[in-house]
Parts: sequence; C-alpha cells; structure tokens
Amino acid sequence: MGKRKLETCFSPALYENDQHAGSVVVIIDILRASSSICTAFENGALSLIPVSEVSEAKEYKNKGYLVAAERDGYVLDFADFGNSPFNFTRERVEGRTIVYSTTNGTSIINLASSAGTVVIGSFLNITALSDWLISGGKDIVLFCAGWKNRFNLEDTICAGAIAERLMKSNLFTTICDSTLAAIDLWELAKDNLQGYIEKVAQRTRLRDKGLDDCIEFCLTADFTKKIPAIKSGILVDNIL
Amino acid sequence: MGKRKLETCFSPALYENDQHAGSVVVIIDILRASSSICTAFENGALSLIPVSEVSEAKEYKNKGYLVAAERDGYVLDFADFGNSPFNFTRERVEGRTIVYSTTNGTSIINLASSAGTVVIGSFLNITALSDWLISGGKDIVLFCAGWKNRFNLEDTICAGAIAERLMKSNLFTTICDSTLAAIDLWELAKDNLQGYIEKVAQRTRLRDKGLDDCIEFCLTADFTKKIPAIKSGILVDNIL
Repeated sequence: MGKRKLETCFSPALYENDQHAGSVVVIIDILRASSSICTAFENGALSLIPVSEVSEAKEYKNKGYLVAAERDGYVLDFADFGNSPFNFTRERVEGRTIVYSTTNGTSIINLASSAGTVVIGSFLNITALSDWLISGGKDIVLFCAGWKNRFNLEDTICAGAIAERLMKSNLFTTICDSTLAAIDLWELAKDNLQGYIEKVAQRTRLRDKGLDDCIEFCLTADFTKKIPAIKSGILVDNIL
Repeated sequence: MGKRKLETCFSPALYENDQHAGSVVVIIDILRASSSICTAFENGALSLIPVSEVSEAKEYKNKGYLVAAERDGYVLDFADFGNSPFNFTRERVEGRTIVYSTTNGTSIINLASSAGTVVIGSFLNITALSDWLISGGKDIVLFCAGWKNRFNLEDTICAGAIAERLMKSNLFTTICDSTLAAIDLWELAKDNLQGYIEKVAQRTRLRDKGLDDCIEFCLTADFTKKIPAIKSGILVDNIL
C-alpha cells in the first residue's frame, strides 16, 4: 500500500480547497480559538455553533444562547465572554450549546468544509489527535489559521509537532515544503517552547491587550483527549 | 530615528501590494529565475523584457529578439533557450536585450510593481544586495516567489540569509513571523546548504526534468555585484 499524503497550509489565502476533498483537514489556531474549542469540550460543552457576523451572534444571544464573541481580541459588549480558553469553564459550558464568533475562525471553517472530515487541533489534544490521524486511512492537511491571512509561527510550530508524530509512524509521505519547514521549526522550538513563543507577533498582540495569560496553558500537551469535529457546520464533541 | 521595517512574504498569494508603496521589494526565486537574471547581467546583458504570454514571447522572437522562455521547466520550442543560469553565457547575452518568459516570474513582477523600488535577489548577489539595502533608507519586503502560489523552502532560506544580514545591521525591526521563521530556517540550513536543499520539493522537480545541474551554482554566494532592478517594467542592469 502506498503511503498517505501529508500537507501543511500556512494561511487561509494558500488553502486549495479543491485539492482536499477526500482528506482529513486539521484546523490549527492555537492562540486562541482551537485551544478554546478543545477546552470547551473537555469541560462538557455539547456543541459550538460558529457564526461569522456579529449581528447573527447577537440574534442568538437574544434567543437565550450562551455567546462567546470577539473581534481582534476584544469581547463584544453583548457577549457572555470572549475567546480565552479560561472562559470556557465547566460551570459555564457543561451541557450547553455555545454560539462562537471569532476574528478568524468561522471563515476558515467554511473554507475547509469541502474536505471529507474537519477536526480541531492544538497542543491541548495533540496525542489523541495524532493517534487518531495515524490510525485513520486518509490523507492529512494541517491547516494553520494564521493571522489576517498571514503566516504565523505558533500555528506552524503546532503543525510541525503533529507532522513529526505522523511522519514517525512511517505511514505518511510529504513533498510539501511547508510540512518540512514546520517540522524543522518545531524541532528548533520544542526544548523551550515558552521561550520560542516569546518572539511571535501574536504574543505581542495578546500582551498589548492583556490577553496573554493563557499562552502557557495553550502550549500544554494533552489537557484533553477530545477531538472536536465539524459536522453539518456545527462543532461537536468528538469525531468518534 | 526609528528603525526601518523588514517584512517577508512567502507567496504571491500572500503579497499585500497596497501595504508596500514606499518600500524596496526584493523578488527571490532562486531556482531558477532570480539566479538566471543575476547571471545574465553579470555576463553583460543590456536588459531583460519580462513577458507573461507565450504568444507575446513568440512575437518578439519573430522580430529578432533573443528569447528565453519556459513553462514548468520546459523550454518552449521557438525559444533560444530556457531558464537555467548556465544558458545566459557572455557569448550569448553580452550587449543584448533578452525577452524573458517564465512560469512564475512575470506575474510576480507585475504584483510588485506598485512598490517604490523592485530589485532581484539571490545568493549570487547577496552581499552587494544586502549592503545596498542596508545603506538605503527604506523599509524592505523580501518577496519569495514560491511555486504555484505555494510556500517553498529554497526562497525562504535565501530570504532568511538576507534578513539575517539586515537585522545584524541593527537598523531594522520586524514584527513579522515570516521573517523570524526565515531566519531560523536559514540558521538551520547554512552550515550545509547543499544538503538542506536536497530535501526541497523543487529539487525533486528539477531532478525529474534533468534540470538540477545548476543548483550548486544557485547556492553560491557573491558571483556578482549586480543588483538587477525593474524600471518601467523592464529588468535593467543595476539599481544604481
């Protein structure tokens, strides 16, 4: 049997959705959306409804939904809370459906929706996710959310960490320079992940807004075994 | 005086031409366009006319111009030669105007043309180029050509090599993760550049077409002091 393909995409602007119809696409946006989603499900959330428009989020709020909504790191005034994983506590989210609106997230979910399967990746679920990706039979695309269509280091490092595990299984092949670069950057960063992340642009952006308290947590491996997945446009608890 | 901005762009699909009006943009496409252009001018070419359409290149040929033209690494049948730097010998190019059509090149030149100044970068002219960039007063964008809009490692490594020199001058600042990643990858690659480039996708593509004989040359620092520049849509000998 031939090896399965592993590709990495560094930005929504580089995503070739016509290429990935049969693949599993892993959305990676570790500071902070994909970390928050993993946390929400670990703490018992039922489902997350991604919405793109503020007006749509507000309509849901008026109907009584719990709403997590931010733009550029700022909580929208009508929302219950913003996009820090620390907001998605068990007390707040257990058994609830949450409407979720972020700067980047929803447009990326829409982009990826033509793929066979779309799951959410972060350091928080890296072992469960990687093991599941290895055990499946599909080609894999690691889709870094980036920031405003730009390359970012933190998602690249996480993609590299996942890619390294997949390549070690010997079941995958890659002719994708992005994957090779991501693995090399992960190798550089892994012995001092906190130190390495100090220099990334998003670290500065979050610090400037007082939102950087969650970074150490977002770099923690294996907080959860959940593998959030998108089904019919809704984020659900687990792919399984 | 504040420091000047240094940014790196990994693909034409990520290039934000409205952001770079006052900047110097360095086009980097080392395997093989930017290396060939540097070689052509070192060997005495007068100017290069970039054209995008095959039909346009053919019209020039019919008018008696020397034509270098390829698509996906293959020389077009009416052309005098293709896109290897080894084709641009002194015997062929000295004192001549060459019409030049490549897979990637012309669309990138058009994209960058809204910038203040556009120059061509490669390992072949790295010291002359870096010194000139440092001595100027402008913000800099290192624009990697990539391959069919995808990220590639060889252009990234070269961008990292240039970026390292600029940052060492202490005249630049960057909040661009692409620049940080490029510098880190260059640091990884520089002690064994040939070995590192072995793994890149373009290496495989060129080998499969028997076009990889020029790679070692394209990784050679300081073959020339020329800094090819684009003026009124034409590539000329030197920015100075």
